[in-house]
Amino acid sequence: MRIALAQLNYIIGDFDLNTSKIIATIEKCRQQGADLVVFAELSVCGYPPRDFLEFDDFILKSYKAIDAIASHCEGIAAIVGAPSHNPDVKGKNLFNSAWLLSDGKVQALAHKALLPTYDIFDEYRYFEPNRTFDCITYKGIKIALTICEDIWNLAPDPLYISNPMDVLALQTPDIMINIAASPFTYDQQKTRLEILKANTNQYKIPIIYVNQVGAQTELLFDGNSCVLDSEGKNVAGCKAFDEDICFADFNPDDKSIVSDSPQLIENSSKTALIHDALVMGIRDYFVKMGFSKAILGLSGGIDSALTLALAAEALGNENVYAVLLPSEYSSDHSIADAVALAENLGCKYDTIGIKEGYNSILESLKPFFKDLPFNVAEENLQARVRAVLLMGLANKFGYILLNTSNKSEASVGLADYINRDHEIIPVNSIAKPPSAELRPGQKDSDSLPEYDILDQILYNYIELRQSPADLVASGFDETTVKRVLRMVNMNEWKRHQTPPILRVSPKAFGQGRRMPIVGRYLS
Amino acid sequence: MRIALAQLNYIIGDFDLNTSKIIATIEKCRQQGADLVVFAELSVCGYPPRDFLEFDDFILKSYKAIDAIASHCEGIAAIVGAPSHNPDVKGKNLFNSAWLLSDGKVQALAHKALLPTYDIFDEYRYFEPNRTFDCITYKGIKIALTICEDIWNLAPDPLYISNPMDVLALQTPDIMINIAASPFTYDQQKTRLEILKANTNQYKIPIIYVNQVGAQTELLFDGNSCVLDSEGKNVAGCKAFDEDICFADFNPDDKSIVSDSPQLIENSSKTALIHDALVMGIRDYFVKMGFSKAILGLSGGIDSALTLALAAEALGNENVYAVLLPSEYSSDHSIADAVALAENLGCKYDTIGIKEGYNSILESLKPFFKDLPFNVAEENLQARVRAVLLMGLANKFGYILLNTSNKSEASVGLADYINRDHEIIPVNSIAKPPSAELRPGQKDSDSLPEYDILDQILYNYIELRQSPADLVASGFDETTVKRVLRMVNMNEWKRHQTPPILRVSPKAFGQGRRMPIVGRYLS
Repeated sequence: MRIALAQLNYIIGDFDLNTSKIIATIEKCRQQGADLVVFAELSVCGYPPRDFLEFDDFILKSYKAIDAIASHCEGIAAIVGAPSHNPDVKGKNLFNSAWLLSDGKVQALAHKALLPTYDIFDEYRYFEPNRTFDCITYKGIKIALTICEDIWNLAPDPLYISNPMDVLALQTPDIMINIAASPFTYDQQKTRLEILKANTNQYKIPIIYVNQVGAQTELLFDGNSCVLDSEGKNVAGCKAFDEDICFADFNPDDKSIVSDSPQLIENSSKTALIHDALVMGIRDYFVKMGFSKAILGLSGGIDSALTLALAAEALGNENVYAVLLPSEYSSDHSIADAVALAENLGCKYDTIGIKEGYNSILESLKPFFKDLPFNVAEENLQARVRAVLLMGLANKFGYILLNTSNKSEASVGLADYINRDHEIIPVNSIAKPPSAELRPGQKDSDSLPEYDILDQILYNYIELRQSPADLVASGFDETTVKRVLRMVNMNEWKRHQTPPILRVSPKAFGQGRRMPIVGRYLS
Repeated sequence: MRIALAQLNYIIGDFDLNTSKIIATIEKCRQQGADLVVFAELSVCGYPPRDFLEFDDFILKSYKAIDAIASHCEGIAAIVGAPSHNPDVKGKNLFNSAWLLSDGKVQALAHKALLPTYDIFDEYRYFEPNRTFDCITYKGIKIALTICEDIWNLAPDPLYISNPMDVLALQTPDIMINIAASPFTYDQQKTRLEILKANTNQYKIPIIYVNQVGAQTELLFDGNSCVLDSEGKNVAGCKAFDEDICFADFNPDDKSIVSDSPQLIENSSKTALIHDALVMGIRDYFVKMGFSKAILGLSGGIDSALTLALAAEALGNENVYAVLLPSEYSSDHSIADAVALAENLGCKYDTIGIKEGYNSILESLKPFFKDLPFNVAEENLQARVRAVLLMGLANKFGYILLNTSNKSEASVGLADYINRDHEIIPVNSIAKPPSAELRPGQKDSDSLPEYDILDQILYNYIELRQSPADLVASGFDETTVKRVLRMVNMNEWKRHQTPPILRVSPKAFGQGRRMPIVGRYLS
């Protein structure tokens, strides 16, 4: 049996687009001799559909899309992902299902049992977990059909009390097929391959793993769909960060699986992966929202420099507009660095001083501020005037404003990566002490620990969930630790109002990290 | 047995404060002859603790707090809520538990089985559902001890496949105790009483129901803890929107329960309830964050007028600062209405024209805007200059800026309610057509349907999840329906960046409504 792995980029809720992509891919695979084409989890509606699933109309549209796809499955079968109604009056109304379509109709369904409800996942919010398991059979081949998380429960401290594959294995399937929507983090591909190999090791049959690709707001899906043989050997794989199809030929007699498609590419540097993920994330946000042009404030510092370089790569340099917004405290060097970068990239740029707007607003506030000393109020006011100027241009000309806030350490590695062939981002931008340049001689380190210390504390606290005692025990200064954790926790309200942040870490700021705004823990 | 219902207001993660409140309440109830004091769900750590639960250190602090509380339970018992470790290696690491404390130590635990994971709830994100059920016994009385959602599964289309009370009832308990964290909506008290009565009707024993009170960021807990006898009769209840304790005497021989505390107040108008909830929500946000003073922009329109009146009530008129920020398009009437309101309330107010700041920034943009016609860019620019002025004052003087965005229809009812005794909000502010006054003669209805139509479409779509076809079938104009739904869905990115909104509706914008930002459903 020739199986095609169809790794596509879907738009959530765009049934017309998703359906026509799926149908076109079925046709293409048929021409290449496939017996079965496998698509990703919830491919029909896009993943994650979130609260769209609460609309009966949305589910109805999904059912209609399934019918349309099934009608194209003549002489070929397809496995697609879509919600299905739970026939039992008890429990939630929907299952997260894999649908086997052939001979123009729905032949079988397999429902997801393990519903990830942690970090960025909310599946138990919508779906009833499946409790009964049966292999499906197509062309005499017995398939253990599972959905993403269903095969992720092999750890020594398992998150769920049972494994669907343990039940399915009793029915002696010939092959496993897993349809997934597994988002990118910088170490996810490694983790994912370990899990897939743990499954082939445990169940001794080949596995077909189909992931979706593309960005869904902050979530980045890298694809990397693949085929492993019964010994966990890499047989074939789709490209990372792009749509792709690969094929594998399964022989049920000896359970062997071979492929004329390329193998999965298993190794890339962490920085290269993050770079590619961010470029895809920026591009897909714009494409899927129907936008084309971006604007950003370019300071000559590393954060906005890196954002500009990534945006130019994602959207084309002709679609990115850099605006230099110097204050009276901005150094000549900053302006020169910003200009050099914009010219290196070939992006349009302009300069608008903020002094006039700032002074005018300060003059309006003069009767209230009186002779109070210059402080953070005036610093922030300059930053806000910058935002007003940028948003004015964005509104007038249809640009989308990119946020250039940093997540320090990663920035330096990525800036070096952008410069890997030749200097695009001025080395001065990378090397100089970070500063918002909102008062004379200001440096970020005046109000924050040095970034190399700050980054480690943040990583240990946010990603590893270490306690203050853990951090002090590993050598960080106690006062610094308390101050940093307090700053993180006191500023939850700011993160609540932040624009979407492309997610590249296993525990990132955004929908995967849900903290109380009002709370007094470590604050 | 004399049982005290302790309805307290907790701060999430503030173990010192919560513990000392609980201990002080145990002492107080002991003095009033109580045998058992019952506190709310997760009372020790505060509800909802959200991802604080992922920190081992947080759980450890909770265990220590339990020990401290238990040491005060001599000659009296307490039931408190806190997370507990799941001893089984399989499944999630924590239970959401009710702890029976007496004789200085932990006597028994009951774990929550039904974990709400919908709307604003995320409990399966953190907790393993309980699967084994045993009544607990104290002073010879057999108690069916459950936690909030555990008793909410009696509908004909139940969300969960089993009911903990069905198992516990087989053990013939004398009484039910339910500890809860049940947030307010304008119809929640009615729904909650129906559920409690359905339980007494089904299981024929009295119920002690203890809710927490107070606001946790956007979530408003109204309290309304209560005692129903075995026939569902209202025996006693705590106050709404305030800390309170009530007592009930249970006689195990005849299962009768009587009280010398006041009965639960069952009826208030929807508008009065929303008013009280919002006042509590504003007050608690400030108190718990350690803030005291608020600032807002006062336009003379209904939205900011209502916000000012609510803030003055919540924080004291001396703590609320109103700033009039007229544009060149503002009418004299608007200014007069704003001044009248500030004076009626006795709030400090000032006037800062935005013309100078606006013109100066427009001048900086002139080389780019050139002679392009005035449009939404200039309108928004004026609104943003207002925000910069307000934030400048907020930063300089330590005010917290209140958002005055509307949710139209509710505003009118509430403004009338504020005026119930005499005119505080000028009737002109309530009656005149809403306008941002950012260009000559501008009215909201230029770009939106009239609010009475808009409100109905939004209610049917957002709260009832009706489809476009449903809406058209109930008589709304198809073009208007499509336009409104498209506006709602295209602007998800704006709501993503909004400050917390106090939740008063069953399906409100905020953490209970999780939509894709990038999606193409009804947009």
